[in-house]
Amino acid sequence: MTWDVFDRNLPVGADFLPWYDELVASAQLADHGPVTGTMVIRPYGYAIWEAIRRELELRIKACGVDNAYFPLFIPQHYLSRVEELEGLESELAVVTHAAGSRLTDPAVVRFSSETVIGEFLGKWIQSYRDLPLRLNQWANVVRWEENPSLFMRTNEFLWQEGHTVHTSRDEAREFARRVQTEIYQDLMENVIALPVVAGIKSRRERSGGPELNTFTCESMTGDGRALQLGTSVEGGQVFAKAFGIQYLDQDGGREYPWTTSWGASTRLIGGLIMGHGDADGLRLPPLMAPQQVVVLWDTPAAAKPARDLVARLREAGLRATADERVDLALSARTAQWKVKGVPVRVHVAVRPDGSATATLSLRLAGQADVEIPIEQSTSHLVALMEIEQTAMLAHARQDRDARISECDTVTHAREAAWHGWAKLPWDRVRGKGENELAVDGVTVRCLQRADGTVPDHDDEPDLVAFVARSY
Amino acid sequence: MTWDVFDRNLPVGADFLPWYDELVASAQLADHGPVTGTMVIRPYGYAIWEAIRRELELRIKACGVDNAYFPLFIPQHYLSRVEELEGLESELAVVTHAAGSRLTDPAVVRFSSETVIGEFLGKWIQSYRDLPLRLNQWANVVRWEENPSLFMRTNEFLWQEGHTVHTSRDEAREFARRVQTEIYQDLMENVIALPVVAGIKSRRERSGGPELNTFTCESMTGDGRALQLGTSVEGGQVFAKAFGIQYLDQDGGREYPWTTSWGASTRLIGGLIMGHGDADGLRLPPLMAPQQVVVLWDTPAAAKPARDLVARLREAGLRATADERVDLALSARTAQWKVKGVPVRVHVAVRPDGSATATLSLRLAGQADVEIPIEQSTSHLVALMEIEQTAMLAHARQDRDARISECDTVTHAREAAWHGWAKLPWDRVRGKGENELAVDGVTVRCLQRADGTVPDHDDEPDLVAFVARSY
Repeated sequence: MTWDVFDRNLPVGADFLPWYDELVASAQLADHGPVTGTMVIRPYGYAIWEAIRRELELRIKACGVDNAYFPLFIPQHYLSRVEELEGLESELAVVTHAAGSRLTDPAVVRFSSETVIGEFLGKWIQSYRDLPLRLNQWANVVRWEENPSLFMRTNEFLWQEGHTVHTSRDEAREFARRVQTEIYQDLMENVIALPVVAGIKSRRERSGGPELNTFTCESMTGDGRALQLGTSVEGGQVFAKAFGIQYLDQDGGREYPWTTSWGASTRLIGGLIMGHGDADGLRLPPLMAPQQVVVLWDTPAAAKPARDLVARLREAGLRATADERVDLALSARTAQWKVKGVPVRVHVAVRPDGSATATLSLRLAGQADVEIPIEQSTSHLVALMEIEQTAMLAHARQDRDARISECDTVTHAREAAWHGWAKLPWDRVRGKGENELAVDGVTVRCLQRADGTVPDHDDEPDLVAFVARSY
Repeated sequence: MTWDVFDRNLPVGADFLPWYDELVASAQLADHGPVTGTMVIRPYGYAIWEAIRRELELRIKACGVDNAYFPLFIPQHYLSRVEELEGLESELAVVTHAAGSRLTDPAVVRFSSETVIGEFLGKWIQSYRDLPLRLNQWANVVRWEENPSLFMRTNEFLWQEGHTVHTSRDEAREFARRVQTEIYQDLMENVIALPVVAGIKSRRERSGGPELNTFTCESMTGDGRALQLGTSVEGGQVFAKAFGIQYLDQDGGREYPWTTSWGASTRLIGGLIMGHGDADGLRLPPLMAPQQVVVLWDTPAAAKPARDLVARLREAGLRATADERVDLALSARTAQWKVKGVPVRVHVAVRPDGSATATLSLRLAGQADVEIPIEQSTSHLVALMEIEQTAMLAHARQDRDARISECDTVTHAREAAWHGWAKLPWDRVRGKGENELAVDGVTVRCLQRADGTVPDHDDEPDLVAFVARSY
């Protein structure tokens, strides 16, 4: 199946972010909090986060990972334990006073829990029997942002961070890959309906030694930029050495284990909006939608068949809601539900002969309204949910692919990146090419093999680079 | 059905809290975090919190409440908006520096979100159509504690706080009562198997005017004290006035609405331990148990039938686990599972004739081991889960009731409160009696009607007071 590449009538260039901000406000997803850069996630936005969290949680647990919880506060001196944390001061919030007096050891508000988790893993791991150890934490973290944007960059955000410990590099790498595909890519594509390019980061775009990998999932925004929405990192033995994590192997020798770490955050909601939104507002895939079907009417006679339909839809397992605000113009109500991205609106009317009809309006662009007898609408809507879920991903993939230019040279790629992504041989970019791209704010988003699979390291021959501007 | 009041062989007096601390450590529930008074919730403890959270969440949503999320940081000057927050400074953590420089307006780390929620409710509520509005938040909060104790009092803890807004006092009171019974009491008794006394606080033990109520659920600890484990508060119009929350009623007049607020926290895990623990460690009701059945064996021949049993139990919907550590003495493994409170241990053995037997050992005190053919054990164990769940509540209720003394005088009640709770006519205590009790650290935990129902206010005639020492 193919569609015409549809036009979402999105503003581009400098008008894209104002469109985004306006959508977040008008769909009642989030507000700015009273402390600069913080965010109030409103019930509608939080319901979307709950859906993401529930689906992530299922996949995380299926990988044999247990949840735990580590403290919000970290002693400031812990930061010196990991070299990469130096220079992080510009992002930290520090508690200097508690219970009315100055703390002798100031506490940093967690920006991630890796230092504390490292310390406790060191205490809990004794022997090879304790491995693999797989932990995850759901928590709020704080990173002070210069240019905050709701869901995209806020001083406080919600996320999950996973940390695992293994007895071999291969096992750790395999697990990091599994997180990339079975947790993140599967969530993004099969639930959020956002197609992603899964690959590894170039050495310039990640930290860690040459033998390590950072696995990333990159989605495209409505204005053709890239968003990194879920990252899975091989930590090698660096992390274990920094925190003194050792285990007794089967021969009684002391060994450093191999670790992974991985995270995804409320930024996924930003990716969902930027990836699916159009000029009329949000568009939600059915699996993400707090309300999958809204039923409207405007004559008193239609109230009963409409409410009955909502009851039947709920019985059939759909999230359906009745819009009872009949004293508000239908056009105003319709616009509100469009902004909120509800996949299907059903308008119930009663004919002169007393029979009720249901007119189905789909939020997916380019689809005409369908009028059917109300008795047929329940089964029709149940089937539609699956169809729309699949169509949104296919639609988004086609739209994205149309904006990926195959290029031969860095010069060509720099041009293409003003409107979308560029794809070109990694050999053309490696090293000097990355500097050249950076002049336009273009970066290598990830590397893949020619067949679309994820390479083992960036020195493999014939790799392909995806380059783009990003948020 | 009745049981002998069983002896849990718990240390009492000054030895009770050391027993508690030792249990928390040996059952691997939690550790102390690196910043004083903070807590690391280990996977086993967090799995118990997840069960509590899941069950609370079901009940909260069934009451028509939506989740939202408000920021961790609150501008310090917000505290002056609510009179009752004055004097709270001794519990607050303050962020004075962020991103390397001093904040012009210091931010307080939330101790609850009520001030920010109040501000946003004021923005979101316009007319009677917006009411009732029912919000809940799951979050971490920080209150600096002088004598921290894991789960009971930690500088940071996890909780839910609910806030609702209504057009009438009756509707608000009705909702606050519904939270007390349908959310908290139902969770505590029918899931955690902790019997509670549900009542209202005396005026001395709550804040707010004479016409308001604080609804509480009080459970008993193994040493006969009281624990307040879930609180639902009528806020009257005080909260609405403090935050300028007004709505247009149907006649176009501006009115202040009536509010409720309610919360429960990781302290519930403390209540579970103190309420069910015995000299051998934790005891978990099946609905709370991360592992409901652990299967052990000590001869190689028993490994296969044991693992097959675990598979069948899982298919039957039980949370079952195989203890594969056969090189560790059975007695050591048994002691570990007892400490962790797993409801049923199954020891699989193979007879000389090749048939396998399962010996079931129940964690509930006073029950003998049962040996049955392994083929019968799955259905037997499925049935046992329900039986044990019910028995734990009945057991705990009988044990608690035996330690509640019916008293006539405050003097008698002061004596009785050294060993358990006292129950006496509220008229004997009211006013001067509460001062007298306070000399021994005894307080009125709650008031009930003579028939056990929850009164509308503390001026009703013939009320009964439950008095006790508490944690």
